[in-house]
Amino acid sequence: MSICVVARRVHFNAAHRLHNAARTAEWNRATFGPCNNPNYHGHNYELEILVEGPVSPDTGYVVDVDVLKQLADETIVGELDHKNLNLDVPWFAERIPSAENIAIFCWDQLAPRLPAGRLTCIRLWETPRNYVEYRGG
Amino acid sequence: MSICVVARRVHFNAAHRLHNAARTAEWNRATFGPCNNPNYHGHNYELEILVEGPVSPDTGYVVDVDVLKQLADETIVGELDHKNLNLDVPWFAERIPSAENIAIFCWDQLAPRLPAGRLTCIRLWETPRNYVEYRGG
Amino acid sequence: MSICVVARRVHFNAAHRLHNAARTAEWNRATFGPCNNPNYHGHNYELEILVEGPVSPDTGYVVDVDVLKQLADETIVGELDHKNLNLDVPWFAERIPSAENIAIFCWDQLAPRLPAGRLTCIRLWETPRNYVEYRGG
Amino acid sequence: MSICVVARRVHFNAAHRLHNAARTAEWNRATFGPCNNPNYHGHNYELEILVEGPVSPDTGYVVDVDVLKQLADETIVGELDHKNLNLDVPWFAERIPSAENIAIFCWDQLAPRLPAGRLTCIRLWETPRNYVEYRGG
Amino acid sequence: MSICVVARRVHFNAAHRLHNAARTAEWNRATFGPCNNPNYHGHNYELEILVEGPVSPDTGYVVDVDVLKQLADETIVGELDHKNLNLDVPWFAERIPSAENIAIFCWDQLAPRLPAGRLTCIRLWETPRNYVEYRGG
Amino acid sequence: MSICVVARRVHFNAAHRLHNAARTAEWNRATFGPCNNPNYHGHNYELEILVEGPVSPDTGYVVDVDVLKQLADETIVGELDHKNLNLDVPWFAERIPSAENIAIFCWDQLAPRLPAGRLTCIRLWETPRNYVEYRGG
Repeated sequence: MSICVVARRVHFNAAHRLHNAARTAEWNRATFGPCNNPNYHGHNYELEILVEGPVSPDTGYVVDVDVLKQLADETIVGELDHKNLNLDVPWFAERIPSAENIAIFCWDQLAPRLPAGRLTCIRLWETPRNYVEYRGG
Repeated sequence: MSICVVARRVHFNAAHRLHNAARTAEWNRATFGPCNNPNYHGHNYELEILVEGPVSPDTGYVVDVDVLKQLADETIVGELDHKNLNLDVPWFAERIPSAENIAIFCWDQLAPRLPAGRLTCIRLWETPRNYVEYRGG
Repeated sequence: MSICVVARRVHFNAAHRLHNAARTAEWNRATFGPCNNPNYHGHNYELEILVEGPVSPDTGYVVDVDVLKQLADETIVGELDHKNLNLDVPWFAERIPSAENIAIFCWDQLAPRLPAGRLTCIRLWETPRNYVEYRGG
Repeated sequence: MSICVVARRVHFNAAHRLHNAARTAEWNRATFGPCNNPNYHGHNYELEILVEGPVSPDTGYVVDVDVLKQLADETIVGELDHKNLNLDVPWFAERIPSAENIAIFCWDQLAPRLPAGRLTCIRLWETPRNYVEYRGG
Repeated sequence: MSICVVARRVHFNAAHRLHNAARTAEWNRATFGPCNNPNYHGHNYELEILVEGPVSPDTGYVVDVDVLKQLADETIVGELDHKNLNLDVPWFAERIPSAENIAIFCWDQLAPRLPAGRLTCIRLWETPRNYVEYRGG
Repeated sequence: MSICVVARRVHFNAAHRLHNAARTAEWNRATFGPCNNPNYHGHNYELEILVEGPVSPDTGYVVDVDVLKQLADETIVGELDHKNLNLDVPWFAERIPSAENIAIFCWDQLAPRLPAGRLTCIRLWETPRNYVEYRGG
């Protein structure tokens, strides 16, 4: 059977603040600049989920992208959309909600729940000009 | 002289909450749904500024788009980028920071300061799937 | 009260064939070229719905874009998505499903049902390189 | 000599239906949902062709992208554009025309005919929100 | 008959220099900055051509977008693509090749040659962040 | 520590000509076609810079994308933007300024100067329909 990657994009938006509570206010301002604004700022996030696996001769699918979308809606969009990542999402209580860490969160939510194939990449656009990729590990 | 419109896109991102303090919590939740989240959410805003005027035979320009960008940076991006619109921007103390009202804010900041031409439209993308247009008045 | 335009994008995809049954096969091939393929071809359609009206001081909205989306889902996407426009949509029984006519269909579905504001434009992208605009009348 | 990847995007649109004739109508409807519509639906497909090879000191090219475009026009766009994949393209007589299988078709058409370099990836966008990647094998 | 606008995007790329030979070198540098570089710079131009007219009941078209594309290829792309606007295009011998003036050139090339409908707008993207619109007159 | 890739897009535009001075005029015209125009043509280049490294627990960053942008502005955009690559950039005195070679230039400028992480890919869009990727070596 041939191996393909299937990718699905989903969207959410959220507020966040980059701040390390273990450091001084001065260090935080110098390190994060305007991203350290105490009242938060926000983004539209575009998330790409890449799943690799054999193409089923029965369906022509690696995995149904609608199933992928529903899973992403339940485990990621439902958790992060229209939220304040620092205040509303327990996973970030101990982690800085940088794009890197949000991508790792998305991986952890999806990887163990995929109905077929295996997650190979989370690509997360934080703005139209910067994104991160996480491939596990 | 020929008349043209010149458009320049700029980018900012911000947190906001849609909430009308004159109404009940219940009305606010029913009206604004997840946009009423008390801890804020946020967006990447893409702003298009459209300026109309005669094309100068001296320069071939209606207005220099770099001047337009600097003006937008000073009067809009510098005021809104990486901010909480509700808490950090006095103009929104008495107004709900909907896309419509942010567009009106942008108009009010730019229209009286243009070095040439006249502002004909503010187009503001709040997400890749919705935007507003304001043409003054 | 200030007047704004609010725009919402929605997506659907469909098969169609450009064919005028009142004309000869030769005329149809000469006029429509590959778009006359008897077995149909198809497109992803991106639809922009523009609604104009006063900005409510209570909500900061002309109209809630989520309401606009639901209305479009019920009256347009639900009718056209994953359909064969020629065979599955009665409105096209007597009309050629060109982008122009699909835009008019969208107008006719939405204009009488808007909860606030008035429809000012339907913009329909048939491919990333061509679109139509219909403003009624 | 340095190794680069050169990528070229091309466009085609087509109708298709996801249906496995070896299964029951009920299985097909449950598996493919609206994609199983008997009258077909369709998409604009954006295809990216990635070719890897050494950069020629004579030309600065891995391969001329115009040659790549002509080859894609002849072997892919000419075969699929404005077609019904199920009815008009013999390759799909025995295969379900899912995005995965279309990508494999594109690979099979291009890989043996490249004038220079080797095909490393076919990336096929079926809608603006989902795509597949095939790397051979 | 209903009135629609049909739009078609075409692409070309070119080198240019913004320079007014009637002015001093110092004025030119101050006015045009890096766009005055004596050795030229360049852009990918994305051109949108908007044509308005009645929708023919015979075809469902205002005008066939393929005819529009061919006309644009002959009268615009063939004249400007892969050219130096200052040196290779006589129309710019006496005019500064700003985006505004290129849009006027496109209008002058297309408006008298349209097979149906009337040209209502030329929209020309010079970069992903700035464009001009010209509506004649 | 988890490993992520961080990507930043930057923009520049430039004129160039594809020409190999060691070959005849005829060979150059046959090989490069309109890209060999003696008066140059030009492009808007979109550059993606991909940097891989461990996510710092202190910052949640692999590397600050603003630092990445400043480094790109100094070492790439400042050297290439609004320039004629053949005439104004010494690095291309002996190299043909194809997209492939421009990507290698970008790599050579950035790779030794990164403050954190390691450069894994330079992706350079020359037009909206073609790009190259260079991964070193």
